[in-house]
Amino acid sequence: MSIRIGIYGYGNLGKGVELAVKQNPDTELAAVFTRRDPASVKTISGAQAVSADDVAQWKDKLDVMIICGGSATDLPVQTPMLAEMFNVIDSFDTHANIPQHYAKVDEAAKKGGNTAVISVGWDPGMFSVQRLYSNVILNNGADYTFWGKGVSQGHSDAIRRVKGVKDAKQYTVPVESAMEAARSGNNPELTTRQKHTRECFVVPEEGADLAQIESDIKNMPNYFSDYDTTVHFITEDELKKNHSGLPHGGFVIRTGTTGAENEHKHVIEYSLKLDSNPEFTACVLVAFARAAARLNKEGSTGCKTIFDIAPAYLSAQSGEELRAHML
Amino acid sequence: MSIRIGIYGYGNLGKGVELAVKQNPDTELAAVFTRRDPASVKTISGAQAVSADDVAQWKDKLDVMIICGGSATDLPVQTPMLAEMFNVIDSFDTHANIPQHYAKVDEAAKKGGNTAVISVGWDPGMFSVQRLYSNVILNNGADYTFWGKGVSQGHSDAIRRVKGVKDAKQYTVPVESAMEAARSGNNPELTTRQKHTRECFVVPEEGADLAQIESDIKNMPNYFSDYDTTVHFITEDELKKNHSGLPHGGFVIRTGTTGAENEHKHVIEYSLKLDSNPEFTACVLVAFARAAARLNKEGSTGCKTIFDIAPAYLSAQSGEELRAHML
Repeated sequence: MSIRIGIYGYGNLGKGVELAVKQNPDTELAAVFTRRDPASVKTISGAQAVSADDVAQWKDKLDVMIICGGSATDLPVQTPMLAEMFNVIDSFDTHANIPQHYAKVDEAAKKGGNTAVISVGWDPGMFSVQRLYSNVILNNGADYTFWGKGVSQGHSDAIRRVKGVKDAKQYTVPVESAMEAARSGNNPELTTRQKHTRECFVVPEEGADLAQIESDIKNMPNYFSDYDTTVHFITEDELKKNHSGLPHGGFVIRTGTTGAENEHKHVIEYSLKLDSNPEFTACVLVAFARAAARLNKEGSTGCKTIFDIAPAYLSAQSGEELRAHML
Repeated sequence: MSIRIGIYGYGNLGKGVELAVKQNPDTELAAVFTRRDPASVKTISGAQAVSADDVAQWKDKLDVMIICGGSATDLPVQTPMLAEMFNVIDSFDTHANIPQHYAKVDEAAKKGGNTAVISVGWDPGMFSVQRLYSNVILNNGADYTFWGKGVSQGHSDAIRRVKGVKDAKQYTVPVESAMEAARSGNNPELTTRQKHTRECFVVPEEGADLAQIESDIKNMPNYFSDYDTTVHFITEDELKKNHSGLPHGGFVIRTGTTGAENEHKHVIEYSLKLDSNPEFTACVLVAFARAAARLNKEGSTGCKTIFDIAPAYLSAQSGEELRAHML
């Protein structure tokens, strides 16, 4: 019997989940839940769209709900609310607030007898588990995470809020020389500015003050002021033609030493190169939905993260098959 | 209370475990078990050496035994035997025989109420878990594993058995163009010969027939005949000076596509660059020893692999700490 998946929130990520479910024959899409008028939502696969208001009626019709809202305001409310009714997966990515999100979701999931997995995706997610594995192996070492080259939606949104900006895309670019320094095993201390640059493609409104826009972007605290930032002004057509995708990726590097005199260096490196950030993230979400459904069947309830789930739970293959063909 | 580790077999890997235990403050080395005369064994740390014949007397004095024998003849006997007495870790790496090794160890470990983890290291081990994670995420894709540049002990041993050879080291070298083809996402079919070359440094015996040695190596079935092999004759001094280390490494690459028309490509790549293969492997073994001790305390017995162990069990940090700092 296939795993019945619900998608809560039908933006880029929700659509990615819909496509990922199609690629995984042991899963099926039961319904898409939307805050919009469901009659106005046409799904890619023809799956039915349902009003988010009616979600409680689906309590026994889904095995896992994959929540595809944003981390700023959606998930802190949606995940605890839905974890009382369903096994849930989210991609909560505000690193600093994970402990409090975990606590709330854990309480709700336990109350409902459900299994929740939070912060699933690639960072947090696959990058986190790589950091964990490489840290436990190379106990004496240093960690480096680089992001990009890819589109940061948060930074693109921040630029769009600048006066005189009509539209924008921001690329986070890792600095090659900093990556080489990290891989050297010399444990360099790298500043924020040394690790990444930010490249902005901005469509100005007609008659806008370009110098002012550039200055407003470059001096924006948290988002840009700590980075070497480049601003390119382009037309709306150019933005559509050359910058409509959502590529991303990154690198997790750990170096460390072993030996009686720390004479042996080791480098562990994990990297992703993604044409579509939301579609890749969606694939991770679906694999963890499989794990959540299984763990719940075994009676394991409450909130979990990628750290708490044995990899075998993610695969549709049996332990025997995995040992014979993948170990 | 720290985790009391025993080391069974004191070669390169056993010595690596001894050094790894020193790097992990929550573990301590209780004893080294050897088939040699214990009086003749001087450990790096000063830990006591004990005759392998007396191992049963240590039943309640160890939390985990790390078995450092070879896969060909040692581990198939040692791991089931020791799993009845102790929680055990081994690095059994004969991929084809893993299912039968698993079955034997599982039976013994369950009989003794112990937890065993087999095939721990980097391949099988970290490479296996990377294959699993990347397969469940990119369901529609292709896998590539490359090894090297590094010393293959099995191939070096094979050369040493050739008539007229005094000593030898063999390096497995991944072919850069094949790696680039794999990363392209075009799912190329790569033959054994296309993926790796083999480079041999051979010290001949005095008066040996060099042309015959070269031919014997290059035509050796399984080991060399399917590869482009280069043979360099060198002196014993050169071998000692330039080829005494045991570096290794490799790459696990998975590419796959997503999207309604499979229009988006993704590349996941994991790589290791190791100055000392046995010392790195030993670090992996110690992390899994921690996990085995914990799992056994929770009442989970029998045989496991890296696929069956939630990553959090590998870390000395609590779940709360991991969520706050590593997720």
